[in-house]
Amino acid sequence: MTLEIPEVVINRLPIYARALSELAARGESVVSSQALGELLDVTPAQIRKDLSYFGRFGKQGRGYNVHSLLKKLREILGIDRQWRLCLVGVGRLGQAIAEYGGFGPQGFEIVAAFDANPEVVGRQIGGVPVHDINQLDSFLGTARVDIGIVAVPAEEAQHVVDKLVGAGIRAILNYAPITAHVPRDITIRHIDPVLALQSMTFYIKRAEPGST
Amino acid sequence: MTLEIPEVVINRLPIYARALSELAARGESVVSSQALGELLDVTPAQIRKDLSYFGRFGKQGRGYNVHSLLKKLREILGIDRQWRLCLVGVGRLGQAIAEYGGFGPQGFEIVAAFDANPEVVGRQIGGVPVHDINQLDSFLGTARVDIGIVAVPAEEAQHVVDKLVGAGIRAILNYAPITAHVPRDITIRHIDPVLALQSMTFYIKRAEPGST
Repeated sequence: MTLEIPEVVINRLPIYARALSELAARGESVVSSQALGELLDVTPAQIRKDLSYFGRFGKQGRGYNVHSLLKKLREILGIDRQWRLCLVGVGRLGQAIAEYGGFGPQGFEIVAAFDANPEVVGRQIGGVPVHDINQLDSFLGTARVDIGIVAVPAEEAQHVVDKLVGAGIRAILNYAPITAHVPRDITIRHIDPVLALQSMTFYIKRAEPGST
Repeated sequence: MTLEIPEVVINRLPIYARALSELAARGESVVSSQALGELLDVTPAQIRKDLSYFGRFGKQGRGYNVHSLLKKLREILGIDRQWRLCLVGVGRLGQAIAEYGGFGPQGFEIVAAFDANPEVVGRQIGGVPVHDINQLDSFLGTARVDIGIVAVPAEEAQHVVDKLVGAGIRAILNYAPITAHVPRDITIRHIDPVLALQSMTFYIKRAEPGST
């Protein structure tokens, strides 16, 4: 039924949900697509089109009910429940991820971390127990884990991704600087600040005096 | 001349450049759009279309010359030179950013960091000197800085973005979980793992038995 919704639309919904949460926290009960668009630097037409994939929201000229649209978006996205994550790789980056305070309040709990380094195995980092990487398969075989976070060096990342997918993980957040391959039915997102920087320098360079 | 190139195309070019670097490191001198597409899970047609914005590359049926295409992409993106960054916010996340080893080798040098916390001001973190946030304006007035990284809490982020833009910074990498506003001629990218997770749960939920 929802098979044909473009991924870019799905990717925008969490941004809408976050803006609606902020409006709700400020006590706003109604918002126009115009006002929501200004908050997010998106056109009102884009917002209306994106939401139209999921049914009719709001009444012509009256705007959206903040609470009911937020509730509906949270249901659509599945962010109205708790998700269990595991983290593979507890080097500097992995430690920052384990200690990051932004996941828990949004329903994303890192239930276990894995690493090969005996100096971190057995410790708790940010409240997350660190297990030996050799225990990954058996852990995933017994505990429910929905999403895997990959924070290992580039050269190990594809192997870790394969292991997670092989153990039944259906969604992967990859911090390693590689384009990891996954089967078609597995969802993957990449967090890569270098790629983001490299896509900005094009615009800085173009704005320079004398550039063509 | 290049004004009409869609941003999604620009965002894909660094991924192509990274793949070409890897091919070059492996000693490959020619690659077909087919082979490049398989490496990146992109269709060959997409690659050919993206590259066509910038001229003619490769010969029909012969593939692309890895070195010359890489060189051209690096020029187009402006990643053939050194860029100077400043980091605002040296809490847990900012420290991880300052210590991240992935920026330097790609030509992105964090030349200074800024924070209000007297416990970090005056220290060096990951080789980056941390200054008092009150010195941000005067620093940017004298030293060349191309890109600002924002790693402050959500409630301070827009203010910091405004300060950076006011001081002449034209590109911002924002790690704070807000949709920061910038003037039209300023480029901003957001690094937000929670939004990435929230866009994946839609797909996990949809794949569940019994979901519609």
